[in-house]
Amino acid sequence: MVPHDGGRPIPNLVEPDIELAASLFDRLSDATRRGRGIVRDSYGAGEQAAHDIMRSAAETIGLEVSLDAIGNLTMTLPGRDRSAQRIIIGSHLDSVPQGGNYDGAAGVVAGLCAVAALKGAGVEPRCDISVMGIRAEESAWFDIAYLGSGGAFGLLDPACLSIPRSDNGCSLESTLIERGFDPQAIRERRRLLDPSQILAYLELHIEQGPTLVAEGLPAAVVTGVRGCKRFRNARCIGQYAHSGAVNRPHRHDAVAATVALLHHLETIWLQQEDAGADLVVTSGELFTDPAMHGPSRIAGETRFVLDVRSVSDATMNAVAAEARRAAAQIGDAYRVAFDLGTTSDSPPAIMDNRLRKSLMSVLDHPFEMPSGAGHDAAVFAQQGIPTGMIFVRNENGSHNPDEAMALDDFAVATRALIDLLLRFPF
Amino acid sequence: MVPHDGGRPIPNLVEPDIELAASLFDRLSDATRRGRGIVRDSYGAGEQAAHDIMRSAAETIGLEVSLDAIGNLTMTLPGRDRSAQRIIIGSHLDSVPQGGNYDGAAGVVAGLCAVAALKGAGVEPRCDISVMGIRAEESAWFDIAYLGSGGAFGLLDPACLSIPRSDNGCSLESTLIERGFDPQAIRERRRLLDPSQILAYLELHIEQGPTLVAEGLPAAVVTGVRGCKRFRNARCIGQYAHSGAVNRPHRHDAVAATVALLHHLETIWLQQEDAGADLVVTSGELFTDPAMHGPSRIAGETRFVLDVRSVSDATMNAVAAEARRAAAQIGDAYRVAFDLGTTSDSPPAIMDNRLRKSLMSVLDHPFEMPSGAGHDAAVFAQQGIPTGMIFVRNENGSHNPDEAMALDDFAVATRALIDLLLRFPF
Repeated sequence: MVPHDGGRPIPNLVEPDIELAASLFDRLSDATRRGRGIVRDSYGAGEQAAHDIMRSAAETIGLEVSLDAIGNLTMTLPGRDRSAQRIIIGSHLDSVPQGGNYDGAAGVVAGLCAVAALKGAGVEPRCDISVMGIRAEESAWFDIAYLGSGGAFGLLDPACLSIPRSDNGCSLESTLIERGFDPQAIRERRRLLDPSQILAYLELHIEQGPTLVAEGLPAAVVTGVRGCKRFRNARCIGQYAHSGAVNRPHRHDAVAATVALLHHLETIWLQQEDAGADLVVTSGELFTDPAMHGPSRIAGETRFVLDVRSVSDATMNAVAAEARRAAAQIGDAYRVAFDLGTTSDSPPAIMDNRLRKSLMSVLDHPFEMPSGAGHDAAVFAQQGIPTGMIFVRNENGSHNPDEAMALDDFAVATRALIDLLLRFPF
Repeated sequence: MVPHDGGRPIPNLVEPDIELAASLFDRLSDATRRGRGIVRDSYGAGEQAAHDIMRSAAETIGLEVSLDAIGNLTMTLPGRDRSAQRIIIGSHLDSVPQGGNYDGAAGVVAGLCAVAALKGAGVEPRCDISVMGIRAEESAWFDIAYLGSGGAFGLLDPACLSIPRSDNGCSLESTLIERGFDPQAIRERRRLLDPSQILAYLELHIEQGPTLVAEGLPAAVVTGVRGCKRFRNARCIGQYAHSGAVNRPHRHDAVAATVALLHHLETIWLQQEDAGADLVVTSGELFTDPAMHGPSRIAGETRFVLDVRSVSDATMNAVAAEARRAAAQIGDAYRVAFDLGTTSDSPPAIMDNRLRKSLMSVLDHPFEMPSGAGHDAAVFAQQGIPTGMIFVRNENGSHNPDEAMALDDFAVATRALIDLLLRFPF
């Protein structure tokens, strides 16, 4: 047992087993690559193959293995006090269709490497440390995200059981039954994990954006998972007219008004950025009506999406309110009517301050950033569980076959996880 | 014969026969309305019905009637000197599918009312005054505008003979033959009208925009027909990425860049407007790729049209050059690439200054404005023929069944035409 009383651990005292990681990534790739990309379909054969590989590795390491009613896999290094609150290191094992090998799986592999290293170094932790292979985080297959982690906390609407799988049309319920799991747990909103029994949730994940590549850093501590406030069905209604025959003062030009609104929101974004706020604002869908528009017609309608994300609810609310105010004003000025519609909201999830600071203190090049994409960590954090997250540098984004994570970077982040575990008062 | 030597004619000396106009509009509506709208298909039954109505009216008035090789109808009040340059008052008799009763036809009816009034008042003009019912001005049927006027001057590319009619697929050539006309005239680029033999071309047309309604005026003198410089296939290429995971400095956001470009061009437009330039700038088609875009994706591509119109070539060239310069600069700033493509250009046509001044002098409420839409008058003006044009107030735009021209307004404009004719040194 390593003596440890909360001070900074000796660097490289416990090294992750990177050969184990390399072999697990190879096995995952061999078992779940379909053509160029990875297919680990939620509750399907691909995800199950990943679960089987992780379970087999856990048994080899000598961990306790269990499955919950909806198939989440828990691999535990027992602590000295089995009744104490435990630490969970987790991520998901499914992927989008034709995804990459690291999104999700890297976090489970990191957890196994970390506990294997602790066990190998003779560390006997005070509390249980569990590695969790979480089911069905991606929404690509059942059009709902966080099935595994949401289901573990009894958070799912039972209506989700009738959602058809996007490729074969089988309902979630029949898919669960086919796989040997119990949809009744979802129907009863049964809590399979008790938040009060969890000391901390930790997740390692590849970064899905280009920040770490641009910064030249191997890893980052995540400050929070951005929430999203999305105007999914915004419209601007003007009047179609001849582009040559109608002068500016008589136009009802939906494109011009939409351009004015989106340009204004970019200036708001820049102001918020200057003020230090975390914010991204995106209009990823924007179109005139192909049945009505024409090269010599002023557009009488646009449709667009406005996607506002921040780790701060206050920032998102301020931008959404400004969007509505500006839409009314610009609508008047351009003689059009905006209908931004309702927003669909997902709240931000803030990472635990103490865990953030600890993770920062164990990185050679400490760097913090928000996560723009959602992660199971957000579900745990929203349950009030102290949650920490670490990103690993990754080229080419995620959700595509070109994900590229270097094992050296993975080692840096996994070592930080181990160092964090060693900082808990074991 | 009315004594007249170039001074201002006595108002109301020669009044147009508005009952004749009303009866012609009624007959046109009865013969060519199909459901709600008017259908006077170019070189089809609808256009022919309008020609038949005009020819019959001309014969009743006692005009000389002739047809050229491609079906343009000329109805002439003979002058004292048959060899002198003549005056043509013309417009087209076709319509778009489900158009209105006045676009085009009003100009021919006005011509007939004017010469009928002159004849009725005993005016024997010095030169021939011809009313011309021009064929196939609209591009809705054969995807080419000005078939009749362009063909009259031998300007058509003979390749146009193989253009299929948009509804029934019959080629222009077979359609001409079926109607008894001679496609050989187009094949030989034969000149059916000699510009040097035309003293002036005059056209009355409904305004296709809302300016006269907004100004509360019955009629306007047209300063020129706007040319058009159109980027028909502009694109912006960025990179698709997760809308939450990529911060502003690392984005290649095609929508944000396109918004920045279009917003900049609106400021250029406002500057030009402040400087007194004639200009309209329109992006009537703008869209992200429905196969690739998504509510949580930064858009990697936009396509759009940029339509720049002015009566001044210099203004259009300046705006197009600024669009290219700004696209390069904004492309750099947003890390995207604009490809504006080539422009398709149609030159502006300036109305004759002397005719403009004369028309202004005979209006009780003189008002000038450019024409944004194209007209046969542009073809005549580009042949070097002194050309004048007058707009009549019209509600609800054109090219739709809701065109609404009041006969009182038509009378004001037709009276101005008559007064102008009386100002020629007969």
